[in-house]
Amino acid sequence: MSGTTIEPQAARSVVRIRVRFVETDAMGVVHHANYAPYMELARIEWLRRRGVSYASIASAGLHLAVYELSIRYRAPARFDDEIDIETHLRELGAASVRFDYRMVRVADRQLLAEGSTRLACVDDRVVLCRLTPEMVGVLTKPEQPT
Amino acid sequence: MSGTTIEPQAARSVVRIRVRFVETDAMGVVHHANYAPYMELARIEWLRRRGVSYASIASAGLHLAVYELSIRYRAPARFDDEIDIETHLRELGAASVRFDYRMVRVADRQLLAEGSTRLACVDDRVVLCRLTPEMVGVLTKPEQPT
Amino acid sequence: MSGTTIEPQAARSVVRIRVRFVETDAMGVVHHANYAPYMELARIEWLRRRGVSYASIASAGLHLAVYELSIRYRAPARFDDEIDIETHLRELGAASVRFDYRMVRVADRQLLAEGSTRLACVDDRVVLCRLTPEMVGVLTKPEQPT
Amino acid sequence: MSGTTIEPQAARSVVRIRVRFVETDAMGVVHHANYAPYMELARIEWLRRRGVSYASIASAGLHLAVYELSIRYRAPARFDDEIDIETHLRELGAASVRFDYRMVRVADRQLLAEGSTRLACVDDRVVLCRLTPEMVGVLTKPEQPT
Repeated sequence: MSGTTIEPQAARSVVRIRVRFVETDAMGVVHHANYAPYMELARIEWLRRRGVSYASIASAGLHLAVYELSIRYRAPARFDDEIDIETHLRELGAASVRFDYRMVRVADRQLLAEGSTRLACVDDRVVLCRLTPEMVGVLTKPEQPT
Repeated sequence: MSGTTIEPQAARSVVRIRVRFVETDAMGVVHHANYAPYMELARIEWLRRRGVSYASIASAGLHLAVYELSIRYRAPARFDDEIDIETHLRELGAASVRFDYRMVRVADRQLLAEGSTRLACVDDRVVLCRLTPEMVGVLTKPEQPT
Repeated sequence: MSGTTIEPQAARSVVRIRVRFVETDAMGVVHHANYAPYMELARIEWLRRRGVSYASIASAGLHLAVYELSIRYRAPARFDDEIDIETHLRELGAASVRFDYRMVRVADRQLLAEGSTRLACVDDRVVLCRLTPEMVGVLTKPEQPT
Repeated sequence: MSGTTIEPQAARSVVRIRVRFVETDAMGVVHHANYAPYMELARIEWLRRRGVSYASIASAGLHLAVYELSIRYRAPARFDDEIDIETHLRELGAASVRFDYRMVRVADRQLLAEGSTRLACVDDRVVLCRLTPEMVGVLTKPEQPT
């Protein structure tokens, strides 16, 4: 990692979602595969709050592609639960970033899951490319007033 | 509809799937939204058995885009059920096709759902385009020996 | 249908969602199967705004199970689009209800899709049961102040 | 881990799937969240080949619940790709198991992803319970002739 300094408080956003019925499974809880999309939408919202729409990055032919994912499940989430997804930028490399996540049920502050993703900056042909200075600028900003 | 004649027996294929756990919901049954992907994969397999990979159509910039979908649910499907998806080409127009589906549990031949989709031939910019004579040729063929 | 009168203005709610990246497909648009969960979450929110959590109905052993679904797709939705889902209760029978939906992109008010679902009141063993007077009371209420 | 010995060759099964269109995303590749269901269905098939239907375990009130998941993505999978999911039982504890996975595209033997899941044996109330001797017996068997 290149060593761009990350200021922890600036690097944190909390996004609230509500569990959809379609996300549950026959065990009566949220199916474990759905936490990856939860983390994805939290990360996209993290960017939006720093002034960047991921849709505009994508339409410029750049993507932040997940190349590593890990999740530890702590307690089951259930249908209709509201969940706070705390999203932290943890590492900022030349062509990659790492985000960590804590998912907490709003009602009782129960920790539901912790996760981490590493993402690489790639172009439309899935070729690795360096983060532009503009992107580094965005990634080191705190949430912007809306 | 243009009136291309469809020979019913030639227009029918049966594709067998098995219900994945992720497709169930907290009612303990297959979530109703999953029948649309079931019908989609059956339709793609229907094409394959007539010598066409949908992936090759798509990479040529053409798509068969669903513009109308209807499903009637008759009995719940459950995790691990094997399901036969009977897929029938019912109409063949200048730029559109209609497929009908019957989904039947293999174990007891219980009818689970009936569905119908209308699809339009569109290009990469989602502009309507006529079915090519080659596609009409494929769509009126019976299953090919593999 | 039993003929319980529905007051159109009371029977309408609008729920706003944002398209998740996971909901797109290789055509670059929202995959058609995702509209069924959109309609489901809008319907659940419709109930919540009349004072009912669907989770509490479900934990009492009752479900509103979709037995008929139809969708007409009018224009493609794309990643990150905000969509207003206008949800209307249209019919209220002894053991079933019908909701209709119009999905409109917020940015340009483009109609994206129209849909309809019929739902049956069933218990945990998927046996049909009459709507209780309490449920009929809820279903004929307008949105409640929060 | 309790130290039940695992014979590597017996502990391996290969399950073949084909990528569904609904599993792709607007980058034109399989969305990374779909690898968790791929691994799940491979694991369930792994059990079936040793004479156990996971549905029968579940209907007896037991579940193997994923409590840890990790995936490293090596190359993008695309629509219609056939994928071999090599599934290995790696650890067998008193109340938990670990499965590892290698996903390889059939056409060119390209490694697509590697993954690992840890699962805990839980009952219907999501309370941890020991693996029964019967389950240990199954988990240490090789594939059975069908």
